[in-house]
Amino acid sequence: MSQAPRINGQRLWDSLMEMAQIGATPKGGVSRLALTEEDRIGRDLFKQWAIEAGCTVKVDAMGNMFARRPGRDDSLPPVVTGSHGDSQPAGGKFDGIYGVLAGLEVVRSLNDHGIATERSIEVINWTNEEGSRFAPAMIASGVYTGVFDLEYGLSRTDAQGVSIGQALQQIGYAGNEPMGGRDIHAAFELHIEQGPILEAEDITIGVVSGAQGQRWYEIELHGRSAHAGTTPMNHRLDALLGVARIVEAVNAMGLAQGDEGRATVGWVQVYPNSRNVVPGRALFSVEFRHPDEAVLEQLDAQLRTEVADIAAATGLGHELKQIFQYAPIAFDAACVDQVQRAAVELGYSHKRMISGAGHDACYLSRVAPTAMIFVPCVDGLSHNEAEHIHPHWSEAGANVLLQAVLAKANEH
Amino acid sequence: MSQAPRINGQRLWDSLMEMAQIGATPKGGVSRLALTEEDRIGRDLFKQWAIEAGCTVKVDAMGNMFARRPGRDDSLPPVVTGSHGDSQPAGGKFDGIYGVLAGLEVVRSLNDHGIATERSIEVINWTNEEGSRFAPAMIASGVYTGVFDLEYGLSRTDAQGVSIGQALQQIGYAGNEPMGGRDIHAAFELHIEQGPILEAEDITIGVVSGAQGQRWYEIELHGRSAHAGTTPMNHRLDALLGVARIVEAVNAMGLAQGDEGRATVGWVQVYPNSRNVVPGRALFSVEFRHPDEAVLEQLDAQLRTEVADIAAATGLGHELKQIFQYAPIAFDAACVDQVQRAAVELGYSHKRMISGAGHDACYLSRVAPTAMIFVPCVDGLSHNEAEHIHPHWSEAGANVLLQAVLAKANEH
Repeated sequence: MSQAPRINGQRLWDSLMEMAQIGATPKGGVSRLALTEEDRIGRDLFKQWAIEAGCTVKVDAMGNMFARRPGRDDSLPPVVTGSHGDSQPAGGKFDGIYGVLAGLEVVRSLNDHGIATERSIEVINWTNEEGSRFAPAMIASGVYTGVFDLEYGLSRTDAQGVSIGQALQQIGYAGNEPMGGRDIHAAFELHIEQGPILEAEDITIGVVSGAQGQRWYEIELHGRSAHAGTTPMNHRLDALLGVARIVEAVNAMGLAQGDEGRATVGWVQVYPNSRNVVPGRALFSVEFRHPDEAVLEQLDAQLRTEVADIAAATGLGHELKQIFQYAPIAFDAACVDQVQRAAVELGYSHKRMISGAGHDACYLSRVAPTAMIFVPCVDGLSHNEAEHIHPHWSEAGANVLLQAVLAKANEH
Repeated sequence: MSQAPRINGQRLWDSLMEMAQIGATPKGGVSRLALTEEDRIGRDLFKQWAIEAGCTVKVDAMGNMFARRPGRDDSLPPVVTGSHGDSQPAGGKFDGIYGVLAGLEVVRSLNDHGIATERSIEVINWTNEEGSRFAPAMIASGVYTGVFDLEYGLSRTDAQGVSIGQALQQIGYAGNEPMGGRDIHAAFELHIEQGPILEAEDITIGVVSGAQGQRWYEIELHGRSAHAGTTPMNHRLDALLGVARIVEAVNAMGLAQGDEGRATVGWVQVYPNSRNVVPGRALFSVEFRHPDEAVLEQLDAQLRTEVADIAAATGLGHELKQIFQYAPIAFDAACVDQVQRAAVELGYSHKRMISGAGHDACYLSRVAPTAMIFVPCVDGLSHNEAEHIHPHWSEAGANVLLQAVLAKANEH
């Protein structure tokens, strides 16, 4: 075992449990939607804890919070870590907030051990990562990194027509820190995996080397609505039969890519959707994810061919639109190596993996050397009130984060 | 060609077009929902025309209208014909009302030709056949024939909570004629096919010998909702994949039954139905129709086996409920033969067929010797504002009806 400093696992767990009281749901989860009163109370608590740990806390125009522990040379670009404090409407106690409070625990632990760092360390709480109240997701790290402009970010509205700008004013988190534009030496985001791989393979640390590229499609099939009793089978143009065959084909395309392939039909709308009418029209989504852009290109071509073939075989008209595209991301090799070295030094089992989900770190990697750390979650469950991680996973992830941040913060 | 009397095709067509003005829609269809003001105006017009043709018009407690042309022996059980005057919300000009006005045209033509009949002839306008405003469909012929009791019929409510009883009072069609219970010598219902068979085979008259039995099911599949990005294909329990395979299997089961088989999945609900979530649950309908109860039994058994096999292969839980069952109906052999004889005598192409849809005649066949006559409709289209029939089809159907009614009305 290395003699590296360790975080205080119990304190981190206690902080997680205390934060989980804010917006706690009867089923043991959390409902802390972005920029609501619950989010404000959570932000206030994080701010109070950060100030108690000796940080200064600044807020930018998107409500992103930066809790800074000064380094010996405060003029050097800092090392940043953190994640998001907002949750899904019926979310769990760990998605996002675990990365924020583990960042705080790194600062607290450095204080405990009396360790000063060359560079400043900032713990970031990003606004509205989930995209549940305001679409799109990761809007505030997107504005920070120039993916969206500030006006666009502030003008996004929720279902009641309240804009992000208005909501920030209401909860007192419209700050005046300049938006992005500064140098960052390195960035780490610690997050629960939100998938089943680490737990299934009994591995404690995911060394996340990048994020999958995504292609999202919307497909419409046109047949002919017809009376289910009077229309013989061979006179039908059944849009749902076309959907069924494409669902099967998409599933096979995903399976053919092995561990790294994802192919999903998650949304289907059938018209007129009546028990005794042959469906005349159907609209549905297809999405592919893969770390290799060339594979996504190939899946794209294969989808277009299979949809056209199935439509022709079933007599259906079809339209296929790509509605979203997101290139695969490779995180910074040195940062990724740093995470892996920390896991090795601390004696944790680990594996390199690709993030299947989007994270603020994906946008941040556009402007700073970045890597992510995953810990397992029980049954791979997330975006669910039953989301759970074991305390020893929580502690291990934060220890790896401490090591990685410390190493980078002492680089000249 | 036979020397049998003919109806006046132009007069029938003109009456159809005049009636279609009531509730006319911009796209050329009709919206004349049961017991609305439009329905009242339509009923008043039918009543006026029937009285002008020498009929007495009586109304029962469900609003069913009986326009009676007296026979030489008014004490003999009458021959009845007719259909329904209500329409779908965006329905066509012929579904239902064609059978009512063709019955009226039979009376008018007998008057023109100075033909008296031994038995009385009654033209019936059944209330709320469509089931669009008040469920279930065919409620009033169902009460007439004892399938439902009167209290049940009157207490059915629309989406606004208005009951059939209240709506009948409002439009002045709550009558006091005794409900059912009388002898009927023979019954004929003339209707558009609402399917594509006659037009596709270029046949003018469908000699309808019965109605298909039906079995309706609701199936639920339980998998596990999961993140589409973080969940590898081989960790998924995708409820939609199960639906896709069952849709394919149900379609194959229908095709295997040839011309007489119908197998339909018309309604699907996927949960959570989100583009980036693997569906964890799905609920959908299956319905089978076939004229042979033994085949329906076999389809029932096959469905249960296939659903269980597919659920097992995809790791899904399943529940299968039969929610509705309707035995096949064989119409009265003598009445069916009478229809066929009329078609032959008049020189119309014809074929024996089975009704895939439910009709008031299906309930009426429980208490009276009954048959139906179909005429083609363009593209098999019905329950649609574009529903259309050609005038020569309209005329041919009414001529067959005249012949059949006349023959039965002169039987002793």
